[in-house]
Amino acid sequence: MDNLEKMRHTLSHVLAAAVRELYPTASFGIGPAINNGFYYDIDFGDTKISDADLSKIEKKMRGIVARKLDMTKRVVSKTEALNWARDHQQNYKIELIEELPEDAEISFYDLGDVFTDLCKGPHVKNTKDVGAFKLVRVAGAYWRGDEKREMLTRIYGVAFATEEELDAYLKQQEEAKARDHRKLGKELDLFCFSDLVGAGLPLFTPRGTELRELMANYSLSLRGREGFKKVWTPHITKTDLYKTSGHYAKFGDELFMVHSQVSGEDFAMKPMNCPHHAQIFASRPRTYRDMPVRYMEATTDYRDEKTGELGGLSRVRSLTQDDSHVFCMTTQIKDEVKRLVGIVKELYGTMGMQKLRARLSYRSDEDKYLGDKKLWEMAQKQIKQAAIDNKLDYFEQEGEAAFYGPKIDFMAEDAIGREHQLATIQLDFVQPERFGLEFVNSKGEKERPVMIHHATLGSIERFLSVFIEHTGGWFPFWCAPEQVRIVTVNDQISDYVSKITEVLDDTVLDKPLKYNELRYTIDDSADSLGKKIKRATEMKIPALLIVGPKDAKENAVSIRLRDREEKIALADLATFLKGL
Amino acid sequence: MDNLEKMRHTLSHVLAAAVRELYPTASFGIGPAINNGFYYDIDFGDTKISDADLSKIEKKMRGIVARKLDMTKRVVSKTEALNWARDHQQNYKIELIEELPEDAEISFYDLGDVFTDLCKGPHVKNTKDVGAFKLVRVAGAYWRGDEKREMLTRIYGVAFATEEELDAYLKQQEEAKARDHRKLGKELDLFCFSDLVGAGLPLFTPRGTELRELMANYSLSLRGREGFKKVWTPHITKTDLYKTSGHYAKFGDELFMVHSQVSGEDFAMKPMNCPHHAQIFASRPRTYRDMPVRYMEATTDYRDEKTGELGGLSRVRSLTQDDSHVFCMTTQIKDEVKRLVGIVKELYGTMGMQKLRARLSYRSDEDKYLGDKKLWEMAQKQIKQAAIDNKLDYFEQEGEAAFYGPKIDFMAEDAIGREHQLATIQLDFVQPERFGLEFVNSKGEKERPVMIHHATLGSIERFLSVFIEHTGGWFPFWCAPEQVRIVTVNDQISDYVSKITEVLDDTVLDKPLKYNELRYTIDDSADSLGKKIKRATEMKIPALLIVGPKDAKENAVSIRLRDREEKIALADLATFLKGL
Repeated sequence: MDNLEKMRHTLSHVLAAAVRELYPTASFGIGPAINNGFYYDIDFGDTKISDADLSKIEKKMRGIVARKLDMTKRVVSKTEALNWARDHQQNYKIELIEELPEDAEISFYDLGDVFTDLCKGPHVKNTKDVGAFKLVRVAGAYWRGDEKREMLTRIYGVAFATEEELDAYLKQQEEAKARDHRKLGKELDLFCFSDLVGAGLPLFTPRGTELRELMANYSLSLRGREGFKKVWTPHITKTDLYKTSGHYAKFGDELFMVHSQVSGEDFAMKPMNCPHHAQIFASRPRTYRDMPVRYMEATTDYRDEKTGELGGLSRVRSLTQDDSHVFCMTTQIKDEVKRLVGIVKELYGTMGMQKLRARLSYRSDEDKYLGDKKLWEMAQKQIKQAAIDNKLDYFEQEGEAAFYGPKIDFMAEDAIGREHQLATIQLDFVQPERFGLEFVNSKGEKERPVMIHHATLGSIERFLSVFIEHTGGWFPFWCAPEQVRIVTVNDQISDYVSKITEVLDDTVLDKPLKYNELRYTIDDSADSLGKKIKRATEMKIPALLIVGPKDAKENAVSIRLRDREEKIALADLATFLKGL
Repeated sequence: MDNLEKMRHTLSHVLAAAVRELYPTASFGIGPAINNGFYYDIDFGDTKISDADLSKIEKKMRGIVARKLDMTKRVVSKTEALNWARDHQQNYKIELIEELPEDAEISFYDLGDVFTDLCKGPHVKNTKDVGAFKLVRVAGAYWRGDEKREMLTRIYGVAFATEEELDAYLKQQEEAKARDHRKLGKELDLFCFSDLVGAGLPLFTPRGTELRELMANYSLSLRGREGFKKVWTPHITKTDLYKTSGHYAKFGDELFMVHSQVSGEDFAMKPMNCPHHAQIFASRPRTYRDMPVRYMEATTDYRDEKTGELGGLSRVRSLTQDDSHVFCMTTQIKDEVKRLVGIVKELYGTMGMQKLRARLSYRSDEDKYLGDKKLWEMAQKQIKQAAIDNKLDYFEQEGEAAFYGPKIDFMAEDAIGREHQLATIQLDFVQPERFGLEFVNSKGEKERPVMIHHATLGSIERFLSVFIEHTGGWFPFWCAPEQVRIVTVNDQISDYVSKITEVLDDTVLDKPLKYNELRYTIDDSADSLGKKIKRATEMKIPALLIVGPKDAKENAVSIRLRDREEKIALADLATFLKGL
C-alpha cells in the first residue's frame, strides 16, 4: 500500500471520529481508501444527512487532525472485538467480526483517545501526515452492496498529499463537470435517448451522426492507406460461432440472446467482430502471397451491460467499434504492429491528445495462457521492437496479457489531465486454431496465421464521450458538425450571401480527412445580430461569418473565431478556412 | 381470370390426363395455373419420376392437345362427386370433396372423353387454344403444404399464348441462370455464407463491401443533395417502441426477440427504422421553420424470415435499408414526394434500369384505413400530381394503399426483361399520431406532421441480387469493386508501372458519385500473359491495362475493355478512364 493510500485510509477514520462526536448514535459500516480519496458508510438512524452537513463534519475533522493524534494498532481476540462492538452498539461491525475466520488476526486502530475502529490497516503514524482533504458529497449505499439490506449514508472525501494537488484535482473536477458530455450532448444536439428505445441505446441526431461518421471515416482512412479493406458482417450470429471460437464458454452469460419465433433457432448479438472476420478469411483458400490479409469494419456490437452502469456515451449497450483484424504470418508481426502503432500515434495527435502511454502486456509463468510459449516470446519481442521503432512512451507488464496473446493498450491524456484507455492492439494465437484458419506457405505447406485485433478509437461512442469532454464541445474545425455559420447583419445582402455560399460550396478540406466538404448554415432570420451571435456561440460553431452591407461593398467577410476576429477578403476565404 | 390463366389451367388438366394414360395408378392432388405456367401435384405410388420422364409426358400431352378436345363443365352433387372419386381411387380428391360446404356448387370438367377432374374452372373451350407450353422440372411437394402429410411429385410446366413468348421466356430463364447472383457472388468474391453464422446472414468480402458501400453512398448522396441529413440509430429497442407505434400488435410474432440475461429486459431487433427516427424528431421542440425535417440512414434491419425462403441475397434476415423519413406539413407533401420521385428516376437511370413503372396505391371505401379521409384525398391528389410532374409511367390502384397512408411502388425492368419491385414512397398519417409528434405552426398552434417513408434501393442486399443479375457481374466502371488491373507483359517494366500508378492514384471519378477514387491492382506475377488476362476476365474487371516494354517506350497503355481494345497515351489515361 503506498503512502497516499494510507493517508486516505486514515482520513476515513478521522471522518468517522468526527461523525461520532457530532452524531453519537451513528453506527459505522466500512470506510476504505479509494481513487482520489476515501469514503465511509454510516447509519445515521433517523437523522437525514445532506451535502449541507459536510462543512460542519469537515470542520470537526480538521480539529481532530490538528491535534496531531497517533494511529495505534492493537491486536485483539475475537471475543474482545465482539465485546467492544456490542458495548458501542456497532451492529455492522458485529456482523463483520462474526464472519472473520477463527484464526484471523483481528486488530483495532486507536485514533489517539478519540476514536477506535476495527481495521486491518495500515495507516499513517500521526494525523499530522494525512495531507490535504475535502469532503465532497453524500450518497446512499446499501450495506454490503445488497439492495435487500439497510441503506446507509456514504460520505465521500477527496484527499491528496499536498494542497496544490488537491486544488488541481478539484479544479479538474469542476472543469470536467462543465464539460460533461451528457450535458454538452444535449446542448449541442448531438445525441438523445428515448425511454421507449431503452437505456444505453443512444440515438444520434444529424449533428452527432456527422461527428461520429467523421471520426469513423478518419480512423478507417488511416488503415485504408495501409492496405486494410472494409468488410461487412451482420450483427447477429448463430451461437455456434461463439461455441467454436470459445467465447461462449467464457462470456456466454453476457451475450444478448436472440430468439427466432419463426424457426426456433437461437442467435446472439455479436459483442465483437473477430469470429465473423475469421469466417470471411476462411471463405477462400489463401496462400503466402495473399498475406497479410487485413480487414476493417466500423460496426456496432452489443453488450449486455448492467443498467446501473450505463451513462451517456461512456458505457452503452450499442457500441460501434472501428475494428480491424490482420491475418499474418508469424514473421510479419512486428511490421504489422508497427503499422498500427503509427496509426494510433497519428490519430491521437490529430485529436490533440499527443500524450500517449502504452502498456505492453506479456504473459507470466502461469498456466492460464494458451498457445506455444516460444511463439509468445517471439511475438513479445516483436511488439517491443515495434514500440521502440515508433518511439512510444511504453512500460512493460508481465501477467497482464490476454489468455490468447500479448497486447498493447494505449492511455491517452485529455485536455484536463485525465487518462483514458482507448486504443488497443492484441495478438491472438487461439482463434486461428479454433477456426482452423490456414494458408499455404512458400514451401507449399499449410500454415496457421496469427490474428491481430486492433481498434484505434476503441468504441466510437466511448471515444466521443472522451472527445466531447476533451474539447469541451469546441470541436476542431475539420470535424465540427457545423463548421461555419453565416450571420447576416440585415436583410439587404442576400445577393452577397449567395456569393459567399458559392465559395463555401467549393471549399473541400483535405486534411486530416480527404474530401471533407464544408458544412455551413445561414442565419438570416429577423432576430437581432446580438441574438444571432449568441445562438451561434452557444452551439460552439468554430467560425462565424458576420456579413453586412459594408462587407458586401468591400467584398470581404468578418470572421469570428473562438479566440479572435478577422476581416478577410472573399477571395482569401477558402484558403483561410482550409488553414483552420 | 384472364385468358392466359385459363390456358395454363387447362394445361394442368392436359398434364394430368397424359400422366393418367402413362401411369394408370397415379392419384392426383391439385393442379393450378401459376405465374408463367402451371403445375400438378401427383402421387405416383412407388414409381420414381424425374426430369428424364418429362419428355415422354410432354409428348403425350401434345398428342392430347392435337386432338382438339373440348373442355366441358358439369355440375354434380356431393354424393356423385364422392362416388366418382371413390370409383377412380382418387383419395386426395375425396379429401377435398369431403371438406366442401354442403351448399357449395361442385363441378367436374371433362377433357373430351379422355379425362375428368374435379374443378371450379374456368378453362379455355378447346385444347386447340392452350397456347405454347413446355414441361420444365419435377419437385417434391407435401400434400397441402403440410410436412406431416404425403410427399407428392410436382410437375412444373411453363406456358404462354405464343411460341415466341414461350421462347423468349425460356431464353430469359437460361440467361438468368447464367447470371445467378449466388453463382456470381462466389465467382467474383463478393459475399459468402458461414454455417456457423447462419442462413440468410451474408458476410461481405472486401469486393462486395466496396460494391454495397458505393450503392449506399450513391443512394444517400442523392438525398443529401436535397437536404436529407444522416442519423444513426441502434439495431435493437425495447418492445415498448413497437407497442406504441402499433407494429407490435400487427407484426409482433415476426420480430427477432432479444433477451437481456443481465437485466431480464425484453428487446426486439428493429425490422424497420421509422419509430427510431420518430424518436429523434421528438427529441426537441420543432416549429414550422424547421419543416420539413428529413432524416436518412443506411442501416441494417432484421426480419425473421422462414429458413426455407432464404436464398442468396434475394431474401435475407439482415437487410440493410437505404431508408429515410420526411416529417412535413400536409401542404408540403407534393414537393417532398416529387423530390423523391426525381431521385428514384435518377438512381435507376444510373443503374441502367430506365424502364420504371409506378403504382399509385390509394385507399378504397373499406374501413381498414386509419387517418382522416379528407387528408387521404388531399394526399392522393398531391402524389398523383408529383407523378405527373415527374413524367412517371404510372397506374393507379384503389384499395392497394397501406392502412396508414397512400403510396407509390416502383417496378424496375432489368436487362433481361424481368420486373422487380424495389423503391417505394409511403405516406404515413398514423405513426405521427401514435408518437404524438408535433410542431408549432406559423399561428403558434401545435400541429401534427405527416411522415413520408422512402427507400430508393429498398434493401441493399436485395437490390444487389437484382443488380448483379442485371449486369451479369459486369458492373459499370464507376462501381466495379476492382475497376482497373494492370497486367504486365514481362518483369522489365516496373518503373513504367510506377508511372502508371501515379496517374491512377491521382484519378478520382466525380460521377455519378463524387470523390470516387480509382480502385486498381497490379498483376506482375510470373504467369503467362494469357493466363493473367484470363484471370482478370474471369473477375469481370472492366479495364485491363496491358503493359509491355513497347508501351513504356511509347509512353502509352493498351486498354482492354469488355467490348474493345484501345491504345491510349499515358497523358490521356485519366481523362479516358473518367469517361468510361
